[in-house]
Amino acid sequence: MTLYVIGIGPGSRDGMTAEAVKIIERCELVVGYTVYADLLRPYFPEKEYVTTGMRQERERVRMACEAAQSRDVALVCSGDSEAYGMAALAYEIGQEFPAIEIVTVPGVTAALSGGALLGSPLTSDFAVISLSDYLTPWETIEKRLLAASEADFVIVLYNPASHARKDYLQRACELVLQKRPAETVCGIARNIGRDGQETRILTLGELRDTQADMFTTVYIGSSATVEIGGKMITYRGYK
Amino acid sequence: MTLYVIGIGPGSRDGMTAEAVKIIERCELVVGYTVYADLLRPYFPEKEYVTTGMRQERERVRMACEAAQSRDVALVCSGDSEAYGMAALAYEIGQEFPAIEIVTVPGVTAALSGGALLGSPLTSDFAVISLSDYLTPWETIEKRLLAASEADFVIVLYNPASHARKDYLQRACELVLQKRPAETVCGIARNIGRDGQETRILTLGELRDTQADMFTTVYIGSSATVEIGGKMITYRGYK
Repeated sequence: MTLYVIGIGPGSRDGMTAEAVKIIERCELVVGYTVYADLLRPYFPEKEYVTTGMRQERERVRMACEAAQSRDVALVCSGDSEAYGMAALAYEIGQEFPAIEIVTVPGVTAALSGGALLGSPLTSDFAVISLSDYLTPWETIEKRLLAASEADFVIVLYNPASHARKDYLQRACELVLQKRPAETVCGIARNIGRDGQETRILTLGELRDTQADMFTTVYIGSSATVEIGGKMITYRGYK
Repeated sequence: MTLYVIGIGPGSRDGMTAEAVKIIERCELVVGYTVYADLLRPYFPEKEYVTTGMRQERERVRMACEAAQSRDVALVCSGDSEAYGMAALAYEIGQEFPAIEIVTVPGVTAALSGGALLGSPLTSDFAVISLSDYLTPWETIEKRLLAASEADFVIVLYNPASHARKDYLQRACELVLQKRPAETVCGIARNIGRDGQETRILTLGELRDTQADMFTTVYIGSSATVEIGGKMITYRGYK
């Protein structure tokens, strides 16, 4: 049978692709992180749900693979199924389950859905970096922040902070400030497509002193990024 | 009235979000690049269409803004409306049309839809770079390629080649090869979600000698990218 690893977008049914909706409708079983599975329940109440908590990614994917031996399974991810999602892990663990097929179904990742709320920050070349050092050494994250700043990418930060990493956004901003002016236009999108949705445009200097949480996506502009009428816009310079 | 700048995903109706479909249904007029507008006609045959050719971005957006003074308008973009799309230009030109409201509606950009076909190349930090030097100086592109390679991002290349830029993918690969081994796992996705869809997994050394066109999206793996059963996967190392 097939294990579909599905990006559900920011969380509302309207943010899902028609493909994602059709495939979930076809599967009996939905597997996911508790918070994201709960977003789906109102839209697909007749499904069977198996959920696991944070940091139980391997267990979650293994359960999904096991179940997919006897029926089609939807393994759901917030945003996109690839970008910091479960798709890669499904292919990795799926090697132990040769009878199942794995299909990646893309979704609108937070970089795009949050960017749309802010205006259009990602119109030119951009780099996406997670500040979580749970799976990536901080030295690697630091190197990427400096490289992306130096080369004038628009930078999107996922997982900018958590209870255990309260000052990571500040640390990231201090690195970027080595390469870019404090007036650089930045933006924040929080609870994208959900209750409590909010956005804010601010300077890099202000961003350094701002508290973020794990429901926040952060945008650091390039030299081509400006504020127009309360929106964060990166010019692409069409002639 | 409102100008909606809408990412329609790779081109099939299934790849569009429910939000994008609903908004297009609500608008009378659809404005877009000829090729992408033609993808929509079969799904929304009752709409009025205004289309322009390549490199007529400013004219296209200005027409959309003018029309939005009297009715709601859908300005459609392939993939996402931000990423190399028309959203930023709409806000820029929209300043001359204070009566209209502009709303960005995100879509699944080619990096994600092509990545899903290849498996899951974008599971960790990634950088998106267009090789078109029509709007960005080649020196800037070169700097970004080197910085992203050095910092071990997965790299996605948009616009890897065109009639006038036949050797740009080769030039890009030669830069990346200064920083990464020739065995680096790479991937190509072509005509994503359309007739003639194809993917290929190959090494960076092979990619250098491969012809691409403007319908191709290219993926250059990081040190964590592997091939598993014909799929391109970037490990994120869940414990």
